[in-house]
Amino acid sequence: MTLASVDLGGTNIGIAIGTAAGEIVANDQIPTQGSLGPAHVLGRIAASVKRLAPTGVDALGLGVPGLCDIRNGTTLFLPNLATQWRGVAVSSMLENELGCPVYLLNDARMATLGELDYGYGRQVKDFVFLTLGTGIGGGVVLDGRLRTIGGEIGHQTIEPDGPLCGCGSRGCLEALASATALNAEGVRLIRMGQAPDLNDRAGGDLNLVTTELMSSCSDEAVGRAIERVGRYIGIGAANLVTVLHPQMVVLAGGLAQMGDLLTGPIRVELRRRVKMFPVDGVRVEVSLTGHRAGILGGLALARRKGVI
Amino acid sequence: MTLASVDLGGTNIGIAIGTAAGEIVANDQIPTQGSLGPAHVLGRIAASVKRLAPTGVDALGLGVPGLCDIRNGTTLFLPNLATQWRGVAVSSMLENELGCPVYLLNDARMATLGELDYGYGRQVKDFVFLTLGTGIGGGVVLDGRLRTIGGEIGHQTIEPDGPLCGCGSRGCLEALASATALNAEGVRLIRMGQAPDLNDRAGGDLNLVTTELMSSCSDEAVGRAIERVGRYIGIGAANLVTVLHPQMVVLAGGLAQMGDLLTGPIRVELRRRVKMFPVDGVRVEVSLTGHRAGILGGLALARRKGVI
Repeated sequence: MTLASVDLGGTNIGIAIGTAAGEIVANDQIPTQGSLGPAHVLGRIAASVKRLAPTGVDALGLGVPGLCDIRNGTTLFLPNLATQWRGVAVSSMLENELGCPVYLLNDARMATLGELDYGYGRQVKDFVFLTLGTGIGGGVVLDGRLRTIGGEIGHQTIEPDGPLCGCGSRGCLEALASATALNAEGVRLIRMGQAPDLNDRAGGDLNLVTTELMSSCSDEAVGRAIERVGRYIGIGAANLVTVLHPQMVVLAGGLAQMGDLLTGPIRVELRRRVKMFPVDGVRVEVSLTGHRAGILGGLALARRKGVI
Repeated sequence: MTLASVDLGGTNIGIAIGTAAGEIVANDQIPTQGSLGPAHVLGRIAASVKRLAPTGVDALGLGVPGLCDIRNGTTLFLPNLATQWRGVAVSSMLENELGCPVYLLNDARMATLGELDYGYGRQVKDFVFLTLGTGIGGGVVLDGRLRTIGGEIGHQTIEPDGPLCGCGSRGCLEALASATALNAEGVRLIRMGQAPDLNDRAGGDLNLVTTELMSSCSDEAVGRAIERVGRYIGIGAANLVTVLHPQMVVLAGGLAQMGDLLTGPIRVELRRRVKMFPVDGVRVEVSLTGHRAGILGGLALARRKGVI
């Protein structure tokens, strides 16, 4: 069975051809250019799939950055793409081009599905999955099943009167602990003269401040900023654990690359805030599927024929 | 089928005999006297059940105020009872006395089960249930199934550096928005001269400040305190809705009697904080089972033979 997976992002589109076992045999990345409209973007996706798999594919799983109706394969609201993406019958448009069934899912939930079928989901049946990147997304797996709605882990309120979030609410985990928030704090520390090493590494250009530079620099204030982000993620994780008591909290996305710098403070907050039952058995781990979670999730979605 | 239900509280024990349809045919309430130890308390429970149902019962569902192992029917940690309740084989002790199977469950989860089988669970398959009383407990029902672990909705962190909670953490919903917290705020307002009407209604005795008096008094500051509690509960509810997207948030316990005074601010916070998907379809309702949720849950647990 030849399967295709597409991870439609605000900036780039990842496309892969693979097997039901999660083996990727060919892949491609193209710029999204979302403002050119759905027909243009979907046309280029179809062309790329045909180029990578000239003899055709049996099914395609597609992750979209926002809200979609998975039953009829239409997008509802993709905040990072242009407004003409509202109410687009993406599945049927691609099905006409490719001659195979196309299944839609929110991108963070698709990545969670990747981890479920090809990562830690092979070891545990209950886990929460956090994608820690430009934004914070996620998914919830209970009794071996991915919950296809909700899952907006990054938009839990952590500080009721905290900073404005891109979603319109205040004090969301994403507003406090995304890579975007962390990098902005790096910029603030440079401007306040608290992060000379970070400034050097960025060559004095605030545009070049990244999570990678921040986690490798020697400024104490930057270290504390990373710890603080870890604490905030830990509070969000503690809330999820308190309510759902999963076996594992799985971290993915760019920030997860920091490893112990991040998992340490998360574990501290879990122990500090989950008091109603023993929490030492709840593992905090970096994803086994890593940056491939989304693409693998698309293969899983295609393999499952959209049945989640 | 004759079923028994027992709701073991820190102060009182509710006991009822009923049918599989949730009809209560006899009931009793006795003081807990938990410090006298498990054998004494369980002996009095068994005596009461025998008195109410002299010809015996087919099964008994028992809710305990804390952590228990539902597979082997032992209590693990009941913070409001004495420490000798740790690791007690409650089910087998009662089974020996009563000659019928005895099923254990945390009391808040048992109340959720009552709502599932005899309340709003007949209308919707996904809901979160909040018991708003001396403490705040709850349960989560997804796809028609009660999650038996987790569910400690009152111990989500709402204010990271907030007041100390009874659980040992800080800023939990329970520390900010339980009847205990609300009544303490009433006491503070009286002492600061901001609640003369509440003071009159309590006859000048701070021991007599209750949620009932607070919701019926005319002091503006007291009204604001109730609204603030509603807002905090709304933040907790918004977090649950953001992560789980249930169809309904169901309120039970003493505070739920306040009706619109509480549901109003909760709805305001839901609209303010859930921005990632339309939230108007998520209903906020006062429990259909009301103060009988726990006892009905015990009947449900007995009827289900512990299968949840």
